[in-house]
Amino acid sequence: MSPTLSRAEPASPALRDLYAPVAEEMRQVDELMRSALRSEHSYIDELVRYGCMLGGKRLRPALVLLCGKALGGTVPAHITMAAVMELVHTASLIHDDILDDAATRRHLATVNSRWDNKASVLLGDYLFTHAFCLAAAIGSVWACQEIARSINLVCEGELRQKGARGDYHLNETSYMEIISAKTATLYACSCALGAHFAGGTTEQVKQLSLYGQDLGIAFQIVDDVLDLAGDEATVGKSLGTDLEQQKLTLPLIHLLSVAEPAQRREVLDILQCAGNHRRQALSPYLERYDAFSYSYAVARQYIQSAIRRLDRLPPSVALQQLQAITEFVVTRSV
Amino acid sequence: MSPTLSRAEPASPALRDLYAPVAEEMRQVDELMRSALRSEHSYIDELVRYGCMLGGKRLRPALVLLCGKALGGTVPAHITMAAVMELVHTASLIHDDILDDAATRRHLATVNSRWDNKASVLLGDYLFTHAFCLAAAIGSVWACQEIARSINLVCEGELRQKGARGDYHLNETSYMEIISAKTATLYACSCALGAHFAGGTTEQVKQLSLYGQDLGIAFQIVDDVLDLAGDEATVGKSLGTDLEQQKLTLPLIHLLSVAEPAQRREVLDILQCAGNHRRQALSPYLERYDAFSYSYAVARQYIQSAIRRLDRLPPSVALQQLQAITEFVVTRSV
Repeated sequence: MSPTLSRAEPASPALRDLYAPVAEEMRQVDELMRSALRSEHSYIDELVRYGCMLGGKRLRPALVLLCGKALGGTVPAHITMAAVMELVHTASLIHDDILDDAATRRHLATVNSRWDNKASVLLGDYLFTHAFCLAAAIGSVWACQEIARSINLVCEGELRQKGARGDYHLNETSYMEIISAKTATLYACSCALGAHFAGGTTEQVKQLSLYGQDLGIAFQIVDDVLDLAGDEATVGKSLGTDLEQQKLTLPLIHLLSVAEPAQRREVLDILQCAGNHRRQALSPYLERYDAFSYSYAVARQYIQSAIRRLDRLPPSVALQQLQAITEFVVTRSV
Repeated sequence: MSPTLSRAEPASPALRDLYAPVAEEMRQVDELMRSALRSEHSYIDELVRYGCMLGGKRLRPALVLLCGKALGGTVPAHITMAAVMELVHTASLIHDDILDDAATRRHLATVNSRWDNKASVLLGDYLFTHAFCLAAAIGSVWACQEIARSINLVCEGELRQKGARGDYHLNETSYMEIISAKTATLYACSCALGAHFAGGTTEQVKQLSLYGQDLGIAFQIVDDVLDLAGDEATVGKSLGTDLEQQKLTLPLIHLLSVAEPAQRREVLDILQCAGNHRRQALSPYLERYDAFSYSYAVARQYIQSAIRRLDRLPPSVALQQLQAITEFVVTRSV
């Protein structure tokens, strides 16, 4: 396998169909990222090429473009903003993989396992700052402010999550706040940027931002379910990392809140012990208390809300895809 | 010791005198950082308070303010930009300490040794993004562009340095390029921002930016000398990290380029062996070939150049301090 920066083909055929109305723009985003990140220094070039293969779904750039299309059409700023969102996402994935001691991402060794944590720190910083450079080059103070505020919220969410490690009293409200910040914010920002640069009204920018927020929350809930219940070979990344990092997610928060006292204690014992068998040991408890069904039901509520945010948009192919993406988010196995 | 964000008193009395013309503004910078970073989440608040004590000299904010004063006076944007530069610097220090496996910084345990690498990654990201938020809030696209470009160059320099680890053929030109990018860029940016927001002409912004660039190069050369020759108790941070990380710096590059073949081989043997005694073992070679004097002479050339960049500024107390800072940079032991 020869590492290249090209990721014009999204990981899943389902996504390729969803992105069809913006396929040409997605290619341009890919091209912009490739040219913006090219480096004359071989060490940097290799690291960047490799790191940029680790994303995959490219949902955030697709949302920038589809929201633009849904409000009339895309302009060059959409391509830039889509690249910015993907760079920010990739940078945060690379830093996340340090946080999670993850070894695999999108069926590839993570940067920290192939190089080391130090390379991951620097590469993430390099991509973050490249994103800011591209964003600032557009000349829109509003966009700079939105992007900076969003990424700051993402970091705040990540820090809150880190602070909550090993806290087995974490409740659903705090969990929702954390995933809203750490995940949904970038979805919301992507949609807001897409709407803004298509000349959307303040209300349209707001509604599409809320659509992104709801979609992002649903996405993260499903991600957290997959981390507990997914198949590593299918998902293509290290799973069970939340348990290793003593991170409570929705299925477990629900389980702990509804389990009978004796079983609750057994679950806590499993959570607190070391070793790799926790995922398996927890499985019967999660089944018995419908923890996964419950989590999917919550995700579906957010999806319903996301779809309602689109109510007042004019009919278009892009709008249909924004609606269809919501279904992908809750049915995906990758 | 109770950690607070207050760092209104710089580490050294010499600096307090140098910063005298902008003492009140420095206090406002401190106040702005404190209020901008306050968090309702206790884990974040503690981490931020602690992390922000690890800087020390506050040279970058002082340069923003003194350059502003030297061109007529400071406005509120100077306070913000000074805080931005200090936040960026602090973020990069925190990420650097991961890179260097450093245990001590400014006589305190580093974030990575007191918490862990993961906390350092997130805290650095949080401070970086806070800096961008503050910068964007000013409403100047030019400032956003300058800052983004500068930090990106810093990251590029850090990555080049990482790629050059263990490369005992690194020459002086490449070393200069690396320290120009990783260190001098932020000095140059600080001075440019200070000049710009005081209404300086394009030429004045350029000359003060070059002053910062020269000053930053001299600063880093002296830093690299101190890492090899300094006293850990005085400098207040882990030293010898360059050797541990197989980073060649100017004294060693010079030594390797002028030593007789037999002695050159001995030096390479010392560099390539493990253990903590390398600093001591290299000392006689560095002495014999005047590696430190040579490095100081190069630093002094940059200082002379920096002073010439100030030639056309109108006389003022701030100008005197910009001149005096150059002397501090090459005579400091901390």
